[in-house]
Amino acid sequence: MVQGDKATVIFQPSGRRGEVRRGLSIIEASRQIGVDIETLCGEKRVCGKCKVRIEEGFFEKYGITSTEKHAGEWQKEEEKFINAEQREAGYRLGCCAKVEGDLLIFVPEESRAGKQVVSKAARDIHIEWNPAVRYYYVEVSEPTFESPTADLERILEELNKRYGLKDLDIDYVLLKQLPSQLREGSWKVTVAVWMNREIIRVLPGTVEGYYGLAIDVGTTTVAAYLCNLATMEVIDTVSMMNPQCKYGEDVMSRITYHMMHSDGLEKMSDDIIGGLNSLVAQACEATHPPKKKKAANKEKPAQIEEGRAYPCLDHTDIIDMTIVGNTAMHHILLKLNPEYVGVAPFPPVIHKSMDIKARDLGIQINESAYVHVLPNEAGFVGADNVGVLIAEEPYKKHEIQLIIDIGTNGELVLGNKAKLMSSSCATGPAFEGAQLTFGMRAAPGAIERINIDTETHEVDYKVIGRDAWKTYSKPEEMQTKGICGSGILDVLAELYRSGVILKSGRFNPNQKSKRYRINSDNNQPEFVIAWAEETSIGKDIAITQKDVRQIQLAKGALYCGCKLMMRRMGIDKVDKVKIAGAFGTHVDREKALIMGLFPDCEIDKIVSVGNAAGDGARAALLNREKRQEANWVSRNVEYIELTVEKDFQQQFMEAMQIPHMNDQFPHLKGIVPDDILSQ
Amino acid sequence: MVQGDKATVIFQPSGRRGEVRRGLSIIEASRQIGVDIETLCGEKRVCGKCKVRIEEGFFEKYGITSTEKHAGEWQKEEEKFINAEQREAGYRLGCCAKVEGDLLIFVPEESRAGKQVVSKAARDIHIEWNPAVRYYYVEVSEPTFESPTADLERILEELNKRYGLKDLDIDYVLLKQLPSQLREGSWKVTVAVWMNREIIRVLPGTVEGYYGLAIDVGTTTVAAYLCNLATMEVIDTVSMMNPQCKYGEDVMSRITYHMMHSDGLEKMSDDIIGGLNSLVAQACEATHPPKKKKAANKEKPAQIEEGRAYPCLDHTDIIDMTIVGNTAMHHILLKLNPEYVGVAPFPPVIHKSMDIKARDLGIQINESAYVHVLPNEAGFVGADNVGVLIAEEPYKKHEIQLIIDIGTNGELVLGNKAKLMSSSCATGPAFEGAQLTFGMRAAPGAIERINIDTETHEVDYKVIGRDAWKTYSKPEEMQTKGICGSGILDVLAELYRSGVILKSGRFNPNQKSKRYRINSDNNQPEFVIAWAEETSIGKDIAITQKDVRQIQLAKGALYCGCKLMMRRMGIDKVDKVKIAGAFGTHVDREKALIMGLFPDCEIDKIVSVGNAAGDGARAALLNREKRQEANWVSRNVEYIELTVEKDFQQQFMEAMQIPHMNDQFPHLKGIVPDDILSQ
Repeated sequence: MVQGDKATVIFQPSGRRGEVRRGLSIIEASRQIGVDIETLCGEKRVCGKCKVRIEEGFFEKYGITSTEKHAGEWQKEEEKFINAEQREAGYRLGCCAKVEGDLLIFVPEESRAGKQVVSKAARDIHIEWNPAVRYYYVEVSEPTFESPTADLERILEELNKRYGLKDLDIDYVLLKQLPSQLREGSWKVTVAVWMNREIIRVLPGTVEGYYGLAIDVGTTTVAAYLCNLATMEVIDTVSMMNPQCKYGEDVMSRITYHMMHSDGLEKMSDDIIGGLNSLVAQACEATHPPKKKKAANKEKPAQIEEGRAYPCLDHTDIIDMTIVGNTAMHHILLKLNPEYVGVAPFPPVIHKSMDIKARDLGIQINESAYVHVLPNEAGFVGADNVGVLIAEEPYKKHEIQLIIDIGTNGELVLGNKAKLMSSSCATGPAFEGAQLTFGMRAAPGAIERINIDTETHEVDYKVIGRDAWKTYSKPEEMQTKGICGSGILDVLAELYRSGVILKSGRFNPNQKSKRYRINSDNNQPEFVIAWAEETSIGKDIAITQKDVRQIQLAKGALYCGCKLMMRRMGIDKVDKVKIAGAFGTHVDREKALIMGLFPDCEIDKIVSVGNAAGDGARAALLNREKRQEANWVSRNVEYIELTVEKDFQQQFMEAMQIPHMNDQFPHLKGIVPDDILSQ
Repeated sequence: MVQGDKATVIFQPSGRRGEVRRGLSIIEASRQIGVDIETLCGEKRVCGKCKVRIEEGFFEKYGITSTEKHAGEWQKEEEKFINAEQREAGYRLGCCAKVEGDLLIFVPEESRAGKQVVSKAARDIHIEWNPAVRYYYVEVSEPTFESPTADLERILEELNKRYGLKDLDIDYVLLKQLPSQLREGSWKVTVAVWMNREIIRVLPGTVEGYYGLAIDVGTTTVAAYLCNLATMEVIDTVSMMNPQCKYGEDVMSRITYHMMHSDGLEKMSDDIIGGLNSLVAQACEATHPPKKKKAANKEKPAQIEEGRAYPCLDHTDIIDMTIVGNTAMHHILLKLNPEYVGVAPFPPVIHKSMDIKARDLGIQINESAYVHVLPNEAGFVGADNVGVLIAEEPYKKHEIQLIIDIGTNGELVLGNKAKLMSSSCATGPAFEGAQLTFGMRAAPGAIERINIDTETHEVDYKVIGRDAWKTYSKPEEMQTKGICGSGILDVLAELYRSGVILKSGRFNPNQKSKRYRINSDNNQPEFVIAWAEETSIGKDIAITQKDVRQIQLAKGALYCGCKLMMRRMGIDKVDKVKIAGAFGTHVDREKALIMGLFPDCEIDKIVSVGNAAGDGARAALLNREKRQEANWVSRNVEYIELTVEKDFQQQFMEAMQIPHMNDQFPHLKGIVPDDILSQ
């Protein structure tokens, strides 16, 4: 029954997987794999916070059907926290259950420690108030024999008379509630009108606030902004891992999953729709008084205690939604065949924006509401990039902007009001910390900043969730877990700046540091960033040669993309570089420049614009004209397919080098030592 | 166990019910109640045509759970026609099963004898071709790196270029099929566009015919016209009893059912939606080759044999639907609360027409198609009357028309291009043959024409399904079953013309005929129309005093309505009387005038316009401008609430008399003997 001393463990919903030694507790396994499970009591089996659900605890080849066998025997301490019904459903405590065989483990939201640092927080952006949905208050007279006009026509007449709204339709599903709402409100109602075209909600009496959600469906992360449409205020930002991660980490592997499984599209779509529904529920719950909330939601009550009293919303109060996402996410969400998006010449099924009834999508907001899905530019530059565009509006400026949106894919926009180009480059998920030996998402314990002494090669670093740098901490205080995306770039830039790696990306074989070594397991050179004693995973956290190559591939793709676009545009310099996405929020601009992520630019002209795609979704939520603008720009930005440029391969190879020719990066002078630049 | 010697039997789907003597066969019971079950072998238990399903064979109060007990013991002859599975489901032969207790019996379509004579057949009406849905053929180029435009945008561009169609949307559900249809058609497709606004179907290659259904939802009967939208041809007319009949025969009893049952609206709506779906299926099946059809559909193959080769349609080929119905039927179908339609001042929920996605209604035509529901005029003058109006177009004429639509309710329109009024009157279902002792629907065996000799009071008559009148037949050849709506009026008019009844409606006590008698069961006077030997039900078919009163109430309501409207209009004469509805098709204009159904008019100015409501639905299906016209007329016809006219009661009482003052009906002179007119 025992097949070697290792077992495969997959954690949901993150989709993270790894091989661990049999006999470890699930908590221990989670640490090794980089999944955060809450353990308030430090595995003393007394807090019950580390509840997980064993989804699949057997693999057919082993012929075992009891989940408890694979997750170890039931412990009496578990009974205190897990009732019979939950036990039946597969619940265990992570500190008690053991890895005795291959396991698929679901970590419920409340058991997830150190919630992801939401780098998709809403920025202040200037949006003119003009939401697609508006509320109107009307009073009508009661029907009489002299005027037995229908309920609806009474309201329509009043909406016309008082607000000049003409020829309105009414959503059929809503119409069913009209007679009762009208009478309950004693012929005084508040009416929600969508796009001056259709009545989508009728509420008795006077209603003031009304709410919408702007959604950014990323390949890895999904963020939702709950907005008060009347005041434009962002009430809450909620986010989650894209539940599709389990089908593959990047766009291509999801498309492949669809092509290999006849129900793949259906499953992936249902998963993201389910995810959106849970975000809707989560955003609504945040508006409820603290006592009604689950213990795990620790951040929210503060806001309400400070007097930000919103009415307690439920999903029917959400009467508008805008969605952005790359073309593959867009297609999969909408159950549109993404197959051709993955094959040259990558035609999408649709460019233009769509207004789809929430009920047709299965999205549980008000059932009469529309979901507005922003338009796509091309197969690999989707509605998310359109979101970036309408948030940043480069087409309204004279200066030439280079906008880089680094998510799981890299999307590039270059231009100004005269001409705008877009493109995509296959950066892969390396910038998000994925596929690296000790990569992890931006969560507590992740290395996000690093300094390497050019003389001693000693390392100082900072982790998310702890203000003090390592130099000012005891080793055991660091509880380091891995390196997140923005940290990765820091590490590489410092390794290069300090001469540990060469411009080719190879480790400098002439190392003086004891942190450099050849890993006996894989015979790869590596450089230790954090010693085992500083970590919570009990082993050294290092950067391997393979990790460096991954980052080089990503940055090469990005740099090469920028250069080719500039060549097409006939320019050799940009006025401004904007970095969007989670990566942009955390990245050190200087380090990015050192790494040569993009062409040379004055440091203070490099700005981070946060989750601009999400900002665009929010702009479209709060201003209907932005929706028109989005459709216009999606068809007026010229999409460049970089891979068919004749010298693409050559350019890409060159771009993988770390220090670019000195003359190409005048702004690096003084940041990187001359001797390294001229290596 | 035996509770007296009678039991209640209800037949579905007609909803007809009655008390019959225990021990009768179900076939015998069906005859007494006026339900037609096929019996080819004359109950010799050898043809197996009289299969029925026992739906409820026990009532809790009796504490019996075996259906066979209530329907009598299983007979060995039944085994030949009913297998074990069917027996389990409650199937029996009507000739073998007996009424041993209360029964709810479902008569499957194939067991229904003498299908209803469809009096809702489509007339030739002049309609200009301009359907809401049109098909367009487009060829697009394949995507390339130079032009990787999305599938949809390729088609939109071509539709714009070739047909001038701009800013089209596409139905979201359809969009999912677009990529495969486009590639299956090698980039050549036929596109269905709704109202120049939305793409609702895409088919590979060239497609020529396209199809829609116009539906008339009557309180009692539902008719559907399957039309080729390309040629305007009516391919087939299918009809059925409104399945809601089991909740009550008239509009008010359905509204009451809703108010008494919290799920009443849902149930009634689901039933009619289910009914529409079966009509869709039936209409589609009619286009299939005869060999694929069920044996029972005997009328259809002829059409196909004559070379009318349509493609075999399925429900997805139906890409448009229009619906008319009175306001209550409209509301119930759409699950709109009909409560207020039943209470003064009877305001509907909505007047204007609606375009509802078929899928939102659960109607199984093409799921991207819209269902167009015509507008309502008022609480008791609904979309069916609007259908009559757009078919007859009185608002385009100089002559003053009185249009009478007699279904289960009476709807009146009076006016011309200068002014148009509408009204409703509670005729009840008497004109449809319901609620009369021997009333039945218009089916084989129903008396439809009658003559009474003024001297001898001898009766001659004709039944539906047999050309020869009684005089030219042997008694046993008649197989008379009852009297249908149009026959009823004939009977009354003849009874009056021959002096059997007086103008007050009372039987003339000085009767010379042996057909006049006092029924010993109920102590009511009655006049025998058909002796038992001429009938298939084994007893005399007679008209009772109560029957006469029912008809008088109906005709009084109608006449009074017409008079009050004319008074409002300030006229004492109309130029033309149009009688719509099934009743109008069968009625003898002279007899209607004798009965004083409506104010005096030259006989040749009285015309029957058939199912004008259905014609209106068809007009709206084939010409989108008719939909606009319908909305316009629904708000420009003045609805008159007759019951609040100050002398309504007085007028109503007077109108119940049969022979009106001679001077009011100059056209009766010469038809009705002077001595009777002056009674």
